[in-house]
Amino acid sequence: MTTILMKGKPVADAIKVELTERIRTELRGIAPTLVVVVPTGESESDYYLRSLSKTAAECGINLLQKVLPAEAATKDYQFVVSSSGMESSIHGILVLRPLPEQVDTDAVTAIIPAEKDVDGVTAGNMAALYLEKPRLVPATAAAVMALLDYHSVPLKGVRAAVVGRSRTVGKPVALMLLSRHATVTICHSRTVDLAEVLQSCEVVVVAAGVLGFIKPGMIKPGAVVIDAGFNVLPDGNVMGDSDPAVAEVASLYAAVPGGVGPLTVVCLLKNLVVAAAQQAKWQGSQLA
Amino acid sequence: MTTILMKGKPVADAIKVELTERIRTELRGIAPTLVVVVPTGESESDYYLRSLSKTAAECGINLLQKVLPAEAATKDYQFVVSSSGMESSIHGILVLRPLPEQVDTDAVTAIIPAEKDVDGVTAGNMAALYLEKPRLVPATAAAVMALLDYHSVPLKGVRAAVVGRSRTVGKPVALMLLSRHATVTICHSRTVDLAEVLQSCEVVVVAAGVLGFIKPGMIKPGAVVIDAGFNVLPDGNVMGDSDPAVAEVASLYAAVPGGVGPLTVVCLLKNLVVAAAQQAKWQGSQLA
Repeated sequence: MTTILMKGKPVADAIKVELTERIRTELRGIAPTLVVVVPTGESESDYYLRSLSKTAAECGINLLQKVLPAEAATKDYQFVVSSSGMESSIHGILVLRPLPEQVDTDAVTAIIPAEKDVDGVTAGNMAALYLEKPRLVPATAAAVMALLDYHSVPLKGVRAAVVGRSRTVGKPVALMLLSRHATVTICHSRTVDLAEVLQSCEVVVVAAGVLGFIKPGMIKPGAVVIDAGFNVLPDGNVMGDSDPAVAEVASLYAAVPGGVGPLTVVCLLKNLVVAAAQQAKWQGSQLA
Repeated sequence: MTTILMKGKPVADAIKVELTERIRTELRGIAPTLVVVVPTGESESDYYLRSLSKTAAECGINLLQKVLPAEAATKDYQFVVSSSGMESSIHGILVLRPLPEQVDTDAVTAIIPAEKDVDGVTAGNMAALYLEKPRLVPATAAAVMALLDYHSVPLKGVRAAVVGRSRTVGKPVALMLLSRHATVTICHSRTVDLAEVLQSCEVVVVAAGVLGFIKPGMIKPGAVVIDAGFNVLPDGNVMGDSDPAVAEVASLYAAVPGGVGPLTVVCLLKNLVVAAAQQAKWQGSQLA
């Protein structure tokens, strides 16, 4: 079987063209501005941030980094988030995870204004997705769906498995697949017969956070497999949650690196442009 | 195989004893008060309301019915909800669904204060469940879980199917099963191979809203089947979403009537007592 690799880059490029156009027309050239709150010394964050900075620059988007020291407390993060929340020239706020141990991530997330929540992590935006009225959705989940759609993968009535139940990937992907009428099974670390579950599924999305967790033998031949895992190796390289040999079994395969990753940052910036356009509209109506 | 019928009544009776005791101790005899907003002429509502009134009376709970005429508009419903929301002697608000066609149910739901939302239908309470910090959860979903727990049904690592993806039953049950570490498949009207999916599951919860949808041949012999469907027949009788012959295949079976139904109203009143106790605590701390 010839496997088609689902590359993130062409999809990302198409979205970048769309964003540049929307900034020109909907925002009339006002550069959307994103504040990224960065904890010091997290290698996952570093990798993501480099990619985000580069892509933002390409699209004419301002990116302001607020780097907090390793010992910063919950209230320090909250201060940065709330002051950015009140500033009308800032359109989006992203708090890079994981935060240091001493920080209460939920308490920091809770004060991101929903309209600036470009990674869809606030309760309001999660609830909107759950209630089938999605607004700003988690960028990784959006990237998974964008890949599936770019390759015209049928979803209606199809058996799909999501491996992992995180707030930012597993659960939102499950809800988005469900809203597209897939029959969705949510698997996780306690799933006993993972191979048996996956063997019954035509679409498999993996975000388990475990390096090489998914082996080729678990996959139904011809299935579509999207690896949304992200593991930074000691040598600085990145690998996903699936064994690259999955390519030998799948019909379409989004590997790591090269699949979901390059698309995630673009989906996040798309959320930013949507948020900025919405805020510009509100401000326009207040002035009118 | 001898099937054990999972009766709602003994579980409901146990919870009623607990509620009476909590009202005595935590509320020091203050009767919890529930406002039920009732659209005129809905037979499903009538049935539920009779059961709710009876159970409330048994537990020493006040129930205030606000019946709205058939032609009432969204703003009429909102007025009743918001005035009940501001009244400190009212601890819970239930808006009986379905509302008449001309009423925007979401717009009415949106103004129920989260702390009085005894059926867990507001965005805040849905988000809390999604984020694994459940507060007030939908009563039918709570009833399903109470039945499973009363019969000590193992859930960890078990394959479970939820048939139906409503906000009030299917999705919350799926999330609750997931938080108990079941491997959960969400099925629905577009699911192509329902029998094949269900055959692989040890636990099946049905809330599809289709009379007799689940046939015995779809069920894995020995599985646990909970019917959370509710269909009112022209003769006034009630039936579920499963063919009663499922009893011949399942090891444990919650049929309709007699299973989830009697427990749902008790779970709703339990939410009310929890809500009232929380509100009493806040008021106490304001006075202190």
